[in-house]
Amino acid sequence: MVRLKMKTKDKHIQNLAEIVGGAHSILYQKEDLIAYDCDGFTLHKHLPKAVVFPKDTKEVAKLAKYCSENGLPFLARGAGTGLSGGAIPVNGEVIISLVRMKRLLSVDLENRRAVVEPGFVNLKLTNSISDKGYYYAPDPSSQYCCTIGGNVAENAGGAHCLKYGVTTNHILGLEVVLPNGEIIEIGQNGIPDAPGYDLLGLLTGSEGTLGIVTKITVRILKNPEAKQTVLAYFDHVSDGSQAVSDIISKGIVPAALEMMDKTAIEGVEAAAFPVGHPKDIEALLLIEVDGISAGIEEQINEILEVCKSRNVRQVKVAENEQERARWWANRKTGFGAMGAISPDYLVQDGVIPRSKLPEVLNRINEISNDYQLRIANIFHAGDGNLHPLVLFDARIPGETEKALKAGSACLQACADAGGSITGEHGVGIEKREEMRFIFKDEEIIAQTDIREVFNPHNLLNGGKLFPSPGRCVEIKKEIKAAAGS
Amino acid sequence: MVRLKMKTKDKHIQNLAEIVGGAHSILYQKEDLIAYDCDGFTLHKHLPKAVVFPKDTKEVAKLAKYCSENGLPFLARGAGTGLSGGAIPVNGEVIISLVRMKRLLSVDLENRRAVVEPGFVNLKLTNSISDKGYYYAPDPSSQYCCTIGGNVAENAGGAHCLKYGVTTNHILGLEVVLPNGEIIEIGQNGIPDAPGYDLLGLLTGSEGTLGIVTKITVRILKNPEAKQTVLAYFDHVSDGSQAVSDIISKGIVPAALEMMDKTAIEGVEAAAFPVGHPKDIEALLLIEVDGISAGIEEQINEILEVCKSRNVRQVKVAENEQERARWWANRKTGFGAMGAISPDYLVQDGVIPRSKLPEVLNRINEISNDYQLRIANIFHAGDGNLHPLVLFDARIPGETEKALKAGSACLQACADAGGSITGEHGVGIEKREEMRFIFKDEEIIAQTDIREVFNPHNLLNGGKLFPSPGRCVEIKKEIKAAAGS
Repeated sequence: MVRLKMKTKDKHIQNLAEIVGGAHSILYQKEDLIAYDCDGFTLHKHLPKAVVFPKDTKEVAKLAKYCSENGLPFLARGAGTGLSGGAIPVNGEVIISLVRMKRLLSVDLENRRAVVEPGFVNLKLTNSISDKGYYYAPDPSSQYCCTIGGNVAENAGGAHCLKYGVTTNHILGLEVVLPNGEIIEIGQNGIPDAPGYDLLGLLTGSEGTLGIVTKITVRILKNPEAKQTVLAYFDHVSDGSQAVSDIISKGIVPAALEMMDKTAIEGVEAAAFPVGHPKDIEALLLIEVDGISAGIEEQINEILEVCKSRNVRQVKVAENEQERARWWANRKTGFGAMGAISPDYLVQDGVIPRSKLPEVLNRINEISNDYQLRIANIFHAGDGNLHPLVLFDARIPGETEKALKAGSACLQACADAGGSITGEHGVGIEKREEMRFIFKDEEIIAQTDIREVFNPHNLLNGGKLFPSPGRCVEIKKEIKAAAGS
Repeated sequence: MVRLKMKTKDKHIQNLAEIVGGAHSILYQKEDLIAYDCDGFTLHKHLPKAVVFPKDTKEVAKLAKYCSENGLPFLARGAGTGLSGGAIPVNGEVIISLVRMKRLLSVDLENRRAVVEPGFVNLKLTNSISDKGYYYAPDPSSQYCCTIGGNVAENAGGAHCLKYGVTTNHILGLEVVLPNGEIIEIGQNGIPDAPGYDLLGLLTGSEGTLGIVTKITVRILKNPEAKQTVLAYFDHVSDGSQAVSDIISKGIVPAALEMMDKTAIEGVEAAAFPVGHPKDIEALLLIEVDGISAGIEEQINEILEVCKSRNVRQVKVAENEQERARWWANRKTGFGAMGAISPDYLVQDGVIPRSKLPEVLNRINEISNDYQLRIANIFHAGDGNLHPLVLFDARIPGETEKALKAGSACLQACADAGGSITGEHGVGIEKREEMRFIFKDEEIIAQTDIREVFNPHNLLNGGKLFPSPGRCVEIKKEIKAAAGS
């Protein structure tokens, strides 16, 4: 092996560089690594050992094999927009960046499928096929830059997942590099509901802990013939929540049914895409219906009726695509908009049964008072996926910790309401301990046992997704001892 | 332990009887066991060691633990309607029949959920909630008698799965008894997309090889406001197939889009629910659209236009619910109807990309000629889920084997077309070897490794779902040896 000209004598870094074809495809100096010390969850920072940029599946497989054989922790990274810290190198991992693997490999309109590399940006898929009348449904707010590989890892959602489902509902096949470097294909040729165990579902949303996805077959959808969007302002959160329930119970399935509370509205109106929402309302709903043209008008009329019966202050239908796009830009940049009214903010992500909306929003209000921190709510009301945004100032000593505790209390409130601690952002390192709110030790063990099958030494993205072992390890020992006796 | 008065000295049978509360809850004499020697797949028959009827989860857990500790093979059985032999006791299993666990435990209309025991019959759920305006979507043709527990094991589908998805899309939570007797809950409180690995997806469709489901939280849906059903007769299969593609590419998502070919029509017209289909047509389509009233009429008109443009001989819309119900009874009893034109028949179940419909139907025709056996086709055309029905006469020596080979050839044709070997009936014992048509050895190993986590000694429903090990075992040894070196 020819030694490369590199500013390091680290044998592993030299060898990793060789695998990816040279020194131009690896970062290893501190000033370069700093950009990779966190992802969209910025409250923990750790430097990676190196960042490598493979160009194809074979290189990924070689990198995985090399890391496994040499006991080097490693993890895969897409665009780094994840909100729960899933791509943070907490163990000084070698980061395998997939941004060079960004091709759209094929589009099969007749069978409604496309094949992409993991580094392909979400929105680019829709942009590539929209002129032919098709689109890719999962639309996380970061879709203009996040990658489909990352979406698979986190099982990403988005505003339109109420009607169309989250990422897992749109993945038909995966090529996966296992930690030992083996390459497997799952979801045979994009045929869903394949026989055998549902490995496709298992891998999707496994947060990069079971394997590295190197090729993805996704379902694409025909553009809906028509779309209409409604904006409704309410003086009381309870009226807005009740309108949400009423719409759903009429049998209407909106493509999206979003809610923002007063603090959130203050933020989005102070940021880049204000639309002139009144500042004294307590809640707004953004409701979109789509489908074939026939019937859209009637659905919109029913929605307007519901809003009126729930004391809406004002309600309007988008007059054209420009107005609709403006409303969505205002909503979709909502998290970032909090920066306009607070130095720092923590995004949370809980799920509750829709009927518990008023109760849990009250509880979040109490938490806000308890911790003396403002909490804004921007969320997917239609499917009960809350996003409390805890506003704080990291410069004030102790306030970051207070924000984290308030965020955790919000998740506890969701769990207490019969809900879950994440709808679409994943667990990552952020919510590991909160997994205990909803899982018993035995249920965590069942999952880490599965991880062991794929990732036996936990070298691939270790320390993510599950709480620190502790009690689980003890229980496992007891089970083994009992089995042996 | 008090010995029970039983006509056996078998210690295990005595002990199993004690667990389920006495001799009235166990069958162990040959004349009783014969009824359990097969399920809906009747070409293999094996006697179980015993059949036990637990009344609750605790008893199931005790039975599992007892069997595991004593090395007794065991399996769970619902109504025994499965079509791939998943409940056949090929190893002389103890059958745990779940028919006594048949309660509807709760219904939560507001959050659209119901909780049932595994022995609860599919159609009973819809019947229990239809007066309140709700229903349960997965509708296998056996729904009047099959159980939801069995539906979970097989990830059952049905005619209306085109729009509404198969069983896995409607399961929100499971209580599961693991082979060692441990009880776990997955899919926290019915919240879908829970964090951690997707155990819910993994268990659903695992064909009873990972655990025994003892409680099921399902999604229920609001009755569509309106429904309309179209029946269309074609002189050429290719026109019918093309109409299917045209409808889908118009952006219409029918609730169901079924096709029958000439031989199938001959069968259903000779059986219990004839509707007077002309006998000289080559294909019929049964198309149903549902949703809110607004727009249904326009969709129907578009469908009628498509049919006309594809040379339909005759097309009609059901005039009332009676006519619609008659058409569906004719379709849903279609498999059994083959008994009217053939002494025996073998149901196959392959999936293909929709665009390959004409090509694969041609190939099936060739297979029919090759084996000199008639093959009828009744199938879910909208989602490419074929059901070739191989007609044969078991009394003719060698014809059963010929039928099995022809069935296997049909599956090979599906796999060759980029499809899969089962859409909704499962692999069971019937299609174990055909798994090799679509999976590489490594991919089978990844799955059997997962089975090992849950079912380490393969005592629970062993010998199902995967091909006989052979080459896989060798590969695994090589991998282990290489890892050790």
